[in-house]
Amino acid sequence: MTTETLTLVEAEALVTSVLIAADTSPENAASTARALVRAQADGQGGHGLSRLPSYAGQSAVGKVQGHAVPVIEDVKPGVFRVNAGHGFAYPAFEMAIPELATRARSQGIAAAAVYRSHHFGVAGHHCEALAEQGLIAFVYGNAPKAMAPWGAKEPMLGTNPIAFAAPMQGAPLVIDMATTTVARGKILAAREAGKDSIPEGWAFGPDGQPTTDPVTALAGTVAPMGGAKGAALALMVEVMSACLVGAAFGAEASSLFDAEGGAPNLGQLIIAIDPGPISGGAFEARVADLAALYDDMDGARLPGLRRLTARQIAQRDGVQIDATLLAKIRAFL
Amino acid sequence: MTTETLTLVEAEALVTSVLIAADTSPENAASTARALVRAQADGQGGHGLSRLPSYAGQSAVGKVQGHAVPVIEDVKPGVFRVNAGHGFAYPAFEMAIPELATRARSQGIAAAAVYRSHHFGVAGHHCEALAEQGLIAFVYGNAPKAMAPWGAKEPMLGTNPIAFAAPMQGAPLVIDMATTTVARGKILAAREAGKDSIPEGWAFGPDGQPTTDPVTALAGTVAPMGGAKGAALALMVEVMSACLVGAAFGAEASSLFDAEGGAPNLGQLIIAIDPGPISGGAFEARVADLAALYDDMDGARLPGLRRLTARQIAQRDGVQIDATLLAKIRAFL
Repeated sequence: MTTETLTLVEAEALVTSVLIAADTSPENAASTARALVRAQADGQGGHGLSRLPSYAGQSAVGKVQGHAVPVIEDVKPGVFRVNAGHGFAYPAFEMAIPELATRARSQGIAAAAVYRSHHFGVAGHHCEALAEQGLIAFVYGNAPKAMAPWGAKEPMLGTNPIAFAAPMQGAPLVIDMATTTVARGKILAAREAGKDSIPEGWAFGPDGQPTTDPVTALAGTVAPMGGAKGAALALMVEVMSACLVGAAFGAEASSLFDAEGGAPNLGQLIIAIDPGPISGGAFEARVADLAALYDDMDGARLPGLRRLTARQIAQRDGVQIDATLLAKIRAFL
Repeated sequence: MTTETLTLVEAEALVTSVLIAADTSPENAASTARALVRAQADGQGGHGLSRLPSYAGQSAVGKVQGHAVPVIEDVKPGVFRVNAGHGFAYPAFEMAIPELATRARSQGIAAAAVYRSHHFGVAGHHCEALAEQGLIAFVYGNAPKAMAPWGAKEPMLGTNPIAFAAPMQGAPLVIDMATTTVARGKILAAREAGKDSIPEGWAFGPDGQPTTDPVTALAGTVAPMGGAKGAALALMVEVMSACLVGAAFGAEASSLFDAEGGAPNLGQLIIAIDPGPISGGAFEARVADLAALYDDMDGARLPGLRRLTARQIAQRDGVQIDATLLAKIRAFL
């Protein structure tokens, strides 16, 4: 694979220009560019610049409203809604996070429901932004269907990630996982690379039986992580994002990868907790104690270190982007 | 195994009497009896009457304070703390739940931290009690160490369950899972039954390698569900219960099964959300739509049906208790 190296500043500028050329407002383009480049820098290419051609295509035809201006709607002292206006999710999150932080500090806990939303990228990044302000955060968001309910054969639930972050000395602790074993994109990539097989445990065929054949897997469903438990967690995420937000189910949402159909109409829910008051002041010391337990045990390490290392390298050396992808991106200009 | 059948009323009266005889106050004994019998009725024997001999033993020597009176401490409009006073957890939960429901309705979301706490039984029952009042609920609680951090060989984290419930027409949807593949008690039971092997995937030996030998497994660690992801979820629960509550880590807590050592000093965190306001009024219809998707798909079923069926049978026919256990229980009177 031929690649080209871009600094993070160059990458952000490129993404912004492409989105503006595809009928996205400058503010929304800049917000979306920050999110895609941050994902790329963290080694999360599946939520990075690879998304730009489909984002731009969707903005150009109005499947995503590039000029949407998110609006906060007050509901209760501890909760509010953000109408993302069928625009990109990132401007809605950037509006929600400071308001959520303010309310979490005054109320102790607060939640925001983002509706009429779109792909929200690396779930952990939104939690991390709150943890950098000293708050515990959860994000739940659904995604187009890929996984079957446990015992069924047809897809109904998405990769439905759970993300969590907590402030910790140095960098926040960030836990971010799909409730599937892998993203469907990984199976797609294996097929496109012409591979004969995928690892055991990734997928089921349309008959509900485990398969290692990528073609059979793409006709079937992605396996939940941990079997029945992962499928139950994905259902929990569906309740927290679609039902609790008033958004489309993964079973109803249009694709995030093409410009066909109406708006995906996805939903996301964010919770923030101020850890000082609820812990009686104990949180900071207890989380340091927990980090020390990990440091002191052979083989144990806190999740997220690989991501932080990738980020540091990207900040210093830039990101390497596949030349074919870059050519496709530049064709929008 | 010889068993004796008790009606739920008889079982509650027996548990209450035993706890009172072991120096627990009548109120705390009644609260604890309700919880143990409810677990037994739901087919969760591991949190049922099998716990009574160790509960009674701990109350008799003061490892658990049988006369503790839980106290609510106000912190912020959306959060409060409950000092369980090193008593049983159930009276603290019974005090927390109505207060939490009131605050969730007025604030939109609310949380309670239960500290100086003990074994909290079936995590899902506390969520279910909130869902029966029309609220979404989460409970996080830690437990004495049984699982290693991913990549390590020594136990640090407990079975650390995640429980969730949502109101749904008929009975609430309840999701309740240990973040280990199984409870350590299942491996103990296999060894005590003299079994040669346990299923693959349950446990690691002290060398960190998978094992199917129950003796090697008991010297090692219980496997997290879903590999690294389950170990990360267990860490999240540790942060939410121990750090955010100001309680002991699973790595520090004394055993819940014997009368040795000081109070376990565990912590639990409960979150309640009023789904109406935050969803813009959409929740009730959306959750009914989701249940219909499950009903309509071959093989799909919502989690928790087995538990509800067990409960109905127990309400009609009573619960069958192992005669050896019953003899041990009655010896306390």
